[in-house]
Amino acid sequence: MTLPSRQDLLDAKTRIKNIVHKTPILTSTTFNEMVDAQVFFKCENFQRMGAYKMRGASHALSKLTPDQLSRGVVTHSSGNFAQAIALAAKIMGVKAKIVMPVNAPAVKVEAVKGYGADIVFSGPLPSDREQAVEEVISTSGMTFIHPSNDLQVILGNSTCAQELIEEVSGLDIIIAPVGGGGLLAGTALAAHWFSTHTAVWAAEPQNVDDAYRSLLSGKIETNDRTDTIADGLRTNLGDINFPIIKDLVGKVLVVSEEEIIAAMWWIWERMKIIIEPSSAVAVAAVIRYQEEMKGKRVGIIISGGNADVKALAK
Amino acid sequence: MTLPSRQDLLDAKTRIKNIVHKTPILTSTTFNEMVDAQVFFKCENFQRMGAYKMRGASHALSKLTPDQLSRGVVTHSSGNFAQAIALAAKIMGVKAKIVMPVNAPAVKVEAVKGYGADIVFSGPLPSDREQAVEEVISTSGMTFIHPSNDLQVILGNSTCAQELIEEVSGLDIIIAPVGGGGLLAGTALAAHWFSTHTAVWAAEPQNVDDAYRSLLSGKIETNDRTDTIADGLRTNLGDINFPIIKDLVGKVLVVSEEEIIAAMWWIWERMKIIIEPSSAVAVAAVIRYQEEMKGKRVGIIISGGNADVKALAK
Repeated sequence: MTLPSRQDLLDAKTRIKNIVHKTPILTSTTFNEMVDAQVFFKCENFQRMGAYKMRGASHALSKLTPDQLSRGVVTHSSGNFAQAIALAAKIMGVKAKIVMPVNAPAVKVEAVKGYGADIVFSGPLPSDREQAVEEVISTSGMTFIHPSNDLQVILGNSTCAQELIEEVSGLDIIIAPVGGGGLLAGTALAAHWFSTHTAVWAAEPQNVDDAYRSLLSGKIETNDRTDTIADGLRTNLGDINFPIIKDLVGKVLVVSEEEIIAAMWWIWERMKIIIEPSSAVAVAAVIRYQEEMKGKRVGIIISGGNADVKALAK
Repeated sequence: MTLPSRQDLLDAKTRIKNIVHKTPILTSTTFNEMVDAQVFFKCENFQRMGAYKMRGASHALSKLTPDQLSRGVVTHSSGNFAQAIALAAKIMGVKAKIVMPVNAPAVKVEAVKGYGADIVFSGPLPSDREQAVEEVISTSGMTFIHPSNDLQVILGNSTCAQELIEEVSGLDIIIAPVGGGGLLAGTALAAHWFSTHTAVWAAEPQNVDDAYRSLLSGKIETNDRTDTIADGLRTNLGDINFPIIKDLVGKVLVVSEEEIIAAMWWIWERMKIIIEPSSAVAVAAVIRYQEEMKGKRVGIIISGGNADVKALAK
């Protein structure tokens, strides 16, 4: 495949720079001592609406034609991408419909409504969701934006690692969590064009290790189970992001549920920041595979902070 | 009374600059819209050992004579000052004994031990604690450092607001929580010398409103109750910090337990940072008294992040 160009990535950064926050990069002496490496946490939990998804959503919207913008956008998501599209659409004065399953948590539904998007409820199955999206498209002419398998979303996501690479020189490795693959593909592209000596590795829950198996088999694998606390990482790779990942990502590090939970609590209690379980997967990978990172400069993409603290603390 | 000089404050900053972190200042568009003011959060939850107490403790130690340093230091605290003295003493290679009540939470005792300090257990009453300190002093010749009523501790604490004032120009108001008074006195001194047009106000739980009553009566008042979630603010003012506070602090804003808890959760969930209940008192004051801050530039000292998340989320 032909990778997006260096200029494509730079353009994405310019297009969204007035919409997204440049997020801070934190370090922890205690964490560094624990893993014997220099670790840089790129904190997208401080991004608008609380996750990196704001980058991809706002970039995808910024690439629409005036005609498309006038008809609005539709996506399906019960998580961060729903809020990201809703907020980006609000900022740009565009109509948005979000297809959410009827069993989506009320708090997520309220958050999307709070940003002014319309909710379309669908049945709980992927086929129900797709049918609902089709109906919206055929009746309203809205443009569908996929949460992770969309090149403009991937380019938007690449701006996170672009910022990290600009601010921290000489990174040996960048670790990003992998679910649908949109963040990982964007991160890998950023390193490919702006820091060629930096390896990009993925982190994934062992219970939903489809990306791990996909890199081994060379084709997109699926999961038989979805039982992971990292609710943002239950989805599979797509035909647009997988070729990029296959080309540019060195390896996938898998971690257990216990390791994810321990890493999440460590960050909450010691670094005093709220990260969501999906982000803790990347932290857990650095802790578990520290032998491979000894003495290295390691960037971790902290993808978001939309954790249900009360539920997780039970 | 004669206030410490501008130079005293500058000297304190120089003395501890290699020991403490310069902490970040965060803002939140959503919070600003909610209270209709421009609010700057000075994040001492990211300070070493998780609280501003590191500043006062390390400054007090830095002022000791070689003879005093060789004999070591003692303090009484079951909270952040215990960890601060323990860590500062460890960094400076000084022996430290911390008097803690037998009923101190095990997690706090372990944290102090983790920094290498010796624990001396006392009975639960203030008189027990003072007796234990006296015994340590008479047997070991250690120097006692009070957590809040000590001029060198106050000068160390002043460096927090010094940093805030340097980085954020034109602040109309700075709000600091008040317990023992050491942070409030230091904050007031910093504004007095480096930003004379900035008012310094205190925030205090209604249930332990001794500082509120002390400013009204002009003498140090005490509490009959200690039932507040803000465990760092249960103590009374002292004869060294009260004259400074009386002279320089405009008013004390009191808030209810419900307001403290709501503010703490708002910051955890929306700003994605862990702040301890004592810090939430200052946030709650800005929310409750927003009419008085409308359109103003307001600094909030987020004093620390050593919250027991699991217990508080119950």
